[in-house]
Amino acid sequence: MSSNEYTLQQLADFLSAELHGDGDFKVSALSTLEKAGSSDLSFIANSKYQKYLSDTQAGAILMAPSDVGLFKGNALVIDNPYLAYARVSQLFVLSSESAKGIAASVIIAESAKIAETASIAQGVVIGERVVVDEGVIIGPNTVVGDDCFIGAESVLKPNVTLYPDVHVGRYCLIHSGAVLGADGFGFANDEGDWVKIAQLGGVRLGNNVEVGAGTTIDRGALEHTVISDGVILDNQIQIAHNVTIGEKTAIAGCTAVAGSTKIGAGCTIAGACGITGHLNIAAGSHITAMSLVTKSIIEPGVYSSGTGMLPHKQWKKNVVRFRQLDELARRIKSVEDKITEIKGS
Amino acid sequence: MSSNEYTLQQLADFLSAELHGDGDFKVSALSTLEKAGSSDLSFIANSKYQKYLSDTQAGAILMAPSDVGLFKGNALVIDNPYLAYARVSQLFVLSSESAKGIAASVIIAESAKIAETASIAQGVVIGERVVVDEGVIIGPNTVVGDDCFIGAESVLKPNVTLYPDVHVGRYCLIHSGAVLGADGFGFANDEGDWVKIAQLGGVRLGNNVEVGAGTTIDRGALEHTVISDGVILDNQIQIAHNVTIGEKTAIAGCTAVAGSTKIGAGCTIAGACGITGHLNIAAGSHITAMSLVTKSIIEPGVYSSGTGMLPHKQWKKNVVRFRQLDELARRIKSVEDKITEIKGS
Amino acid sequence: MSSNEYTLQQLADFLSAELHGDGDFKVSALSTLEKAGSSDLSFIANSKYQKYLSDTQAGAILMAPSDVGLFKGNALVIDNPYLAYARVSQLFVLSSESAKGIAASVIIAESAKIAETASIAQGVVIGERVVVDEGVIIGPNTVVGDDCFIGAESVLKPNVTLYPDVHVGRYCLIHSGAVLGADGFGFANDEGDWVKIAQLGGVRLGNNVEVGAGTTIDRGALEHTVISDGVILDNQIQIAHNVTIGEKTAIAGCTAVAGSTKIGAGCTIAGACGITGHLNIAAGSHITAMSLVTKSIIEPGVYSSGTGMLPHKQWKKNVVRFRQLDELARRIKSVEDKITEIKGS
Repeated sequence: MSSNEYTLQQLADFLSAELHGDGDFKVSALSTLEKAGSSDLSFIANSKYQKYLSDTQAGAILMAPSDVGLFKGNALVIDNPYLAYARVSQLFVLSSESAKGIAASVIIAESAKIAETASIAQGVVIGERVVVDEGVIIGPNTVVGDDCFIGAESVLKPNVTLYPDVHVGRYCLIHSGAVLGADGFGFANDEGDWVKIAQLGGVRLGNNVEVGAGTTIDRGALEHTVISDGVILDNQIQIAHNVTIGEKTAIAGCTAVAGSTKIGAGCTIAGACGITGHLNIAAGSHITAMSLVTKSIIEPGVYSSGTGMLPHKQWKKNVVRFRQLDELARRIKSVEDKITEIKGS
Repeated sequence: MSSNEYTLQQLADFLSAELHGDGDFKVSALSTLEKAGSSDLSFIANSKYQKYLSDTQAGAILMAPSDVGLFKGNALVIDNPYLAYARVSQLFVLSSESAKGIAASVIIAESAKIAETASIAQGVVIGERVVVDEGVIIGPNTVVGDDCFIGAESVLKPNVTLYPDVHVGRYCLIHSGAVLGADGFGFANDEGDWVKIAQLGGVRLGNNVEVGAGTTIDRGALEHTVISDGVILDNQIQIAHNVTIGEKTAIAGCTAVAGSTKIGAGCTIAGACGITGHLNIAAGSHITAMSLVTKSIIEPGVYSSGTGMLPHKQWKKNVVRFRQLDELARRIKSVEDKITEIKGS
Repeated sequence: MSSNEYTLQQLADFLSAELHGDGDFKVSALSTLEKAGSSDLSFIANSKYQKYLSDTQAGAILMAPSDVGLFKGNALVIDNPYLAYARVSQLFVLSSESAKGIAASVIIAESAKIAETASIAQGVVIGERVVVDEGVIIGPNTVVGDDCFIGAESVLKPNVTLYPDVHVGRYCLIHSGAVLGADGFGFANDEGDWVKIAQLGGVRLGNNVEVGAGTTIDRGALEHTVISDGVILDNQIQIAHNVTIGEKTAIAGCTAVAGSTKIGAGCTIAGACGITGHLNIAAGSHITAMSLVTKSIIEPGVYSSGTGMLPHKQWKKNVVRFRQLDELARRIKSVEDKITEIKGS
């Protein structure tokens, strides 16, 4: 494994951070405050970790101005240390030494256009009229269907599947097991038989989109399914046909969005949510984990559903009462009426 | 990309629809009322879209007799325009020009039998004693285990995995990332250690079954897991070992069905539901999105669970009360008793 | 298909069970009491199946001492017949006759070390510095990234993806579609833009771990994601970055565990649960199906959430009342106060 090393001065310049301490100090890895060794750079982005500052072995720390007094070693001081950590983390990715260029076992249709700087690994199959732009990296055994477009610098990891007519913008990252462009779940019922509705639209991903492992994004029925610039999707998300997701919305793992729903820009949707079809979710909405959304959200805000967890015995008693809730509410009304009557008499 | 074109007279004949207007008018694409161009065929299947009829640019519209007065252009009039749309949509699927026959890189076991009209793409691996029937299409990098059977005209998309002893009927469509025949989750506990129960059954799919992207159907423990004719399964569904699903049942994305549950025919199960093991779900049952089913359903009907979504603050207050529900119910009873006492006194 | 056959005496010796009946009786398959034929071995592990003992055609039955009087045929008597069934089931797995050794189309990096007894199927791609230990079996089209380690006797089924720096212990089984080591979902927000945090940790699986089809286990941000010895994970589970799962914990299908949560040893977590991030779940905890866990569990016990299923109309009435719960609780308090007042007056 190769290794990356930077001086604190280099990192301070990269981040436009204020350097406290030794600018020649060499950092060779990132680590948490608890686990850091003497050549590691760590960070503090939350005051609840201040307790670790006195004992940490870290060689240097990314920190906010307000934490400077709490640590005596080397520091890079910056207003948003978590963002600085994100930026620095990218410097420590080990560059892959795997074969570049186009591997021998790749099968590329004659009408496909592959940029000279693209890298395509073993076992990849690329269909007719596909365009693979400059700097694209495609991992082993990924399949790219006819008429797809992969924008510059995008990465498809191993075992990804793109059906025909899927467009991926620039700087996108699609993780393994993701399937883009499978048929939307559209059927008309003919006296009990399901008659398939051909899914004639495609999938359009903007730039800087990340798609998690095992996530599925179906093709549209007539128009396209659209994922806008800067959207980040975690693992095992299901995006049904004709869904539109606005810019920079983030969706956590295992959430499912049903057909034709439009999610606005800048939303954060937690994991394992269900959002039913044909809804509008206002830009800037936040939905907490495992919520079911069955109505459009007009006002941005924080929304939730569910009951919260309880010890099973206690939960069971309350669930019995949930089933009686309408009756209980009527009994409250009846009691209120009787009291009014007694007081009035 | 090739293009398909039909005259209205051809489509009227195909659908047995009543032609209003110019039978020589040529339709080259399907579209929604809002987006249709002048050579597009559109459809209206829901009265809430009648408002678009006055402004649509569509060259022709599929419509019910009751809507005929609302549009002055070409029309194909038929009782169920949505079903007609489904039928016509299939005419507009562009036939793939990809290589037919058996690609050079395919690896087929000697004892496998591949029909002459089957088409098998690059990177496919086919095990011992597999039978691939007439007209079957298998996409790139799909793996078919020993002793599988793929019925006539069925399609396996790229990156599908069939474990050994999986039988697929005729006219089935299995989407990418689907895994059929992985081991059911069967273990006996030996003082904390999990001892694996070998999963000795297979998977049996009937005819006209569709399996969505990333859906998993486990093999049976002793008998088979069975998906009957005409069942449609959306993406990322989990079907555990020894489940049986009756004819023409439809299940939406991300629903999980636990082991040995029997789901009757003609059910519709919405997305993200959980159905626990060893249950019987009556034929014709309907389950709404994200419901948890822990008891058998004897009477067909519509079933639901959950709390519905609320703004987070309001939800939080109610959840606190949910935790007090049993106590609240007891307090209502106590109040009622006191009132009876007061009134009696 | 080959077949396996054992005498009852052989099975009695293997299990240390008490033999009742004919030790030379030959068993060729396992079956349920209901479906068993005359050469099949069946088992009874639950008293509710005693009703089948009188009519079963089974040639022999695994049973507890307490059931001996209820069946007149051959029996293997043992304290835990379900565990005995698990052990015996493994004898009836048909050994695959597929090609052993390393297939011609496999691509292995020069620096990888492959044990002589390993078996690697067609289309597999193996990265730099990978170690594949003795007896490992890797199925077709699986991809193993740089710097991975696969311990002795472990099995990777077809179409599995291991990103770089994933270590798999001994005797593990990873099912198709599983993705280990994809990036955790880590981003810092920069005025609306999501800045990716490089995921620099790996994934570490202990020994005897089973990972279900389509399950995803993300790599750690700085440290590793850790799955301990003897853990069993069903299909389509999502394990986020830096999660730790203790020994012999079992998790059923479609459950999602968010980042940095630590699940103790010996837990059983049912299907379709959601567990939010940065929690501690006490060893020995049990969580019922489709529960949402948003707080750490300190005391082991059984925990649940949700409302239980109801007929839709009845559910709808109660859900309306759930939304009024806080108000209803206040009205109960008010009624109680008024009664106190009346009684006092």
